[in-house]
Amino acid sequence: MTDSPSPATPTLGAKLAAEGFGTFLLVFGGVGTAVFASNLYTDPSPNAGVYLPVALAFGLTVVVGAYAFGPLSGGHFNPAVTLGVAAAGRIAWRDVVPYIIAQVVGGAIASTLLVLIGMFGPDGWLTGAQDAGFASNGWGEHSPGGFGMASAIIIEVILTGIFLLVILGTTHPERGTKFAGLAIGLTLTLIHLISIPVDNTSVNPARSIASAIYGGVGPLSQLWVFLVFPIVGALLAGFAYKALFDSTQKI
Amino acid sequence: MTDSPSPATPTLGAKLAAEGFGTFLLVFGGVGTAVFASNLYTDPSPNAGVYLPVALAFGLTVVVGAYAFGPLSGGHFNPAVTLGVAAAGRIAWRDVVPYIIAQVVGGAIASTLLVLIGMFGPDGWLTGAQDAGFASNGWGEHSPGGFGMASAIIIEVILTGIFLLVILGTTHPERGTKFAGLAIGLTLTLIHLISIPVDNTSVNPARSIASAIYGGVGPLSQLWVFLVFPIVGALLAGFAYKALFDSTQKI
Amino acid sequence: MTDSPSPATPTLGAKLAAEGFGTFLLVFGGVGTAVFASNLYTDPSPNAGVYLPVALAFGLTVVVGAYAFGPLSGGHFNPAVTLGVAAAGRIAWRDVVPYIIAQVVGGAIASTLLVLIGMFGPDGWLTGAQDAGFASNGWGEHSPGGFGMASAIIIEVILTGIFLLVILGTTHPERGTKFAGLAIGLTLTLIHLISIPVDNTSVNPARSIASAIYGGVGPLSQLWVFLVFPIVGALLAGFAYKALFDSTQKI
Amino acid sequence: MTDSPSPATPTLGAKLAAEGFGTFLLVFGGVGTAVFASNLYTDPSPNAGVYLPVALAFGLTVVVGAYAFGPLSGGHFNPAVTLGVAAAGRIAWRDVVPYIIAQVVGGAIASTLLVLIGMFGPDGWLTGAQDAGFASNGWGEHSPGGFGMASAIIIEVILTGIFLLVILGTTHPERGTKFAGLAIGLTLTLIHLISIPVDNTSVNPARSIASAIYGGVGPLSQLWVFLVFPIVGALLAGFAYKALFDSTQKI
Repeated sequence: MTDSPSPATPTLGAKLAAEGFGTFLLVFGGVGTAVFASNLYTDPSPNAGVYLPVALAFGLTVVVGAYAFGPLSGGHFNPAVTLGVAAAGRIAWRDVVPYIIAQVVGGAIASTLLVLIGMFGPDGWLTGAQDAGFASNGWGEHSPGGFGMASAIIIEVILTGIFLLVILGTTHPERGTKFAGLAIGLTLTLIHLISIPVDNTSVNPARSIASAIYGGVGPLSQLWVFLVFPIVGALLAGFAYKALFDSTQKI
Repeated sequence: MTDSPSPATPTLGAKLAAEGFGTFLLVFGGVGTAVFASNLYTDPSPNAGVYLPVALAFGLTVVVGAYAFGPLSGGHFNPAVTLGVAAAGRIAWRDVVPYIIAQVVGGAIASTLLVLIGMFGPDGWLTGAQDAGFASNGWGEHSPGGFGMASAIIIEVILTGIFLLVILGTTHPERGTKFAGLAIGLTLTLIHLISIPVDNTSVNPARSIASAIYGGVGPLSQLWVFLVFPIVGALLAGFAYKALFDSTQKI
Repeated sequence: MTDSPSPATPTLGAKLAAEGFGTFLLVFGGVGTAVFASNLYTDPSPNAGVYLPVALAFGLTVVVGAYAFGPLSGGHFNPAVTLGVAAAGRIAWRDVVPYIIAQVVGGAIASTLLVLIGMFGPDGWLTGAQDAGFASNGWGEHSPGGFGMASAIIIEVILTGIFLLVILGTTHPERGTKFAGLAIGLTLTLIHLISIPVDNTSVNPARSIASAIYGGVGPLSQLWVFLVFPIVGALLAGFAYKALFDSTQKI
Repeated sequence: MTDSPSPATPTLGAKLAAEGFGTFLLVFGGVGTAVFASNLYTDPSPNAGVYLPVALAFGLTVVVGAYAFGPLSGGHFNPAVTLGVAAAGRIAWRDVVPYIIAQVVGGAIASTLLVLIGMFGPDGWLTGAQDAGFASNGWGEHSPGGFGMASAIIIEVILTGIFLLVILGTTHPERGTKFAGLAIGLTLTLIHLISIPVDNTSVNPARSIASAIYGGVGPLSQLWVFLVFPIVGALLAGFAYKALFDSTQKI
């Protein structure tokens, strides 16, 4: 989550490996916690049982990924973040497409391995987890709390925007902090605490793709919302941050 | 939560944008977690289910807001904090009124957007959330644990005072620390763990206003307590800190 | 939790005020969370409901107290810690008695204020909280999990010893770290996670006194265990650390 | 978790004492939380009740151990970590065997003391805790969620690999960070959130041995999986990290 390169500038290959691995970790950790732990909570409300652990798990993947891989790649692990920081002028636009490919591939490998592990689970476990959406994002009948499409759209734009403002603020070339990795990861935990009940929380198209490909027809048909609106929120925040906080200070 | 400006001193406009956005985040995150997640916990005790997540959410908003926006504005996000740090001589009194206006506006926008998202929620959700007070502060029948007005007054004075002592200690010009943002945010989590059962925790008039305006007649009629007593606690702590810890050291 | 004084060495009065206030915060936060939040969890297992929040609350009081007041007094907030760091040669023995007096007084004021707040609680609340021991430490019928006196003695010696080893390691003059406050506070959370079920966790005579004075005859009659054995563990660890890790390095 | 020695290089004796004590803390904290707290949660799902506290406890032992003892020994507390960092060329191979002996001994002392404390617990407590496996790792009927041996093998290799990548990244001589202890410990919490439901989470042969020796025939007969596959994952990650991230940068 820092875009200042270390003394020896990493090659593009090292950057893409770091982004791919970091997104792998995000999906393996967040989606993995959601699908495995729901097994522990059979009565009375499995959604309630895994709510706090899943919010913590997603955030921790970014905290630890940022400190472990951030110095190599900037630690985005999220196509919306990559687009937002490009909009704010922090990375080159030419890096955006390879970063996003690495992120989507890393996330899909993670959910595929979760399915593989589930194949050796208890009888019917994998079928049940996939019927329940495999921790996909969704609205209406696929929302944990029954919220509609408009709720999901509004909250994805706002929360991805908040995420980018925190990222851009804490990694600012002059006002940034070594606490950035911690602050950014904890922001993702906060985002999940707010919006798991609404749409199971995306703010990250790579995470949404990774779970939807094993979540069945319903989540796949709703996937476009979680590709489009996190990116809308991130771009708005990226351009706004640059205009509001950078230009007013003549930096 | 640091009041030492960055090399390029932010303009008042940038400061007020940071305060408004930070208070937006505080209300959107803390009140948002409370109202949406209570949906997950229908049996047997919704108050118990969201207690720890809400305490974490409020604290995390300040941890991340402090690192993202603190270098611009000092990261108060709270009229009582602004008054307390003015009492301790850390910011100019002339900045107090614009700061408070930005905070109250930012908080009210946040709760308004939560209502907008709730309009597209399940049938009856918004009405139910507002009938339950929309996470407002309160005493008597509006206290989660049934505590009275005197309990609320005493605990608001004490906890807001503690909050200010931690803020003033960790951002002290000579004894301060880069861990201030983390320590201050975790103090807000601690404050919620102590007092959610008593009065749903204010220590912040902007947060109390933001929820009360959508919480109905009961919370609105009790709102004055959560405007007056957090400010009393903050001012007492601000003046006391200056007298006790600054004067004894002749700094 | 750092014993290196700031440039302007604090007076003894400022040190004692810091210790008294920090211990006030520890008891008000930890015991306050325990007694108020148990109100939320009526079914089926109130002990289980408050277990994690109480462990977090005690730890957070030390994290924030250490960063806010540690630069003044060293941030002990605990007579056993004061004795253990004296045994390790980190503070002067002549400061031990005034530190302990300040800690015991600060803790007792905190529990007294909790009782005052409870007087305005729901009918019968205060009587019920005191009949339940007011979060006192205990064994046998006063142990949350029904563990005996020998269990309590062994675990208090071990855990207070661990606490001191972490404190002495993270505040070591040469190997210490600015993360000390965080590490020490999180150690207290860990200690509570381990031993709340055994004896409700002391490792701190000032905390045990503060709750026992409002917990009735049973907790008072068992109090001596929680005065003696935390101190035994702390002294053993203090002397052992000095012998093992300081002498082997010829520092 | 930093392998750069402090100015006065610790003796091998001090290093082994630090590794032994750190692994003692890991087992006493993580296994201790699991066995004692399950007492609090009798209805309806004890596994669910202790899931989050145990994940936090294991992680916190490493956070605090890393800051307290890391400057002495590097803070491995885990034979798989010691082998993985040797594979990556960060410590000398000749230190591996003494480190592992110290870790296994420290862990076994911890579980022995937990048994001793349990001897003075409520009637039948110790027998029940041992019949339930004493928090051992396992698959099939010994898996909390009923997952099979292949699930356990895959997830141990992946998660121990992730653990090593985070350790090697955050303690890298040029790209490392003072947040390493926090990031590494929180990674262990994340690892537990993912895999407690699958096999009760090893990634650490010393931890698996410590609980299996008191867990009865079933856990002992499955122990080999939790010795072999964490080490496989750690070695793969150690060699891969060196090849992928060190060689591409010509460091």
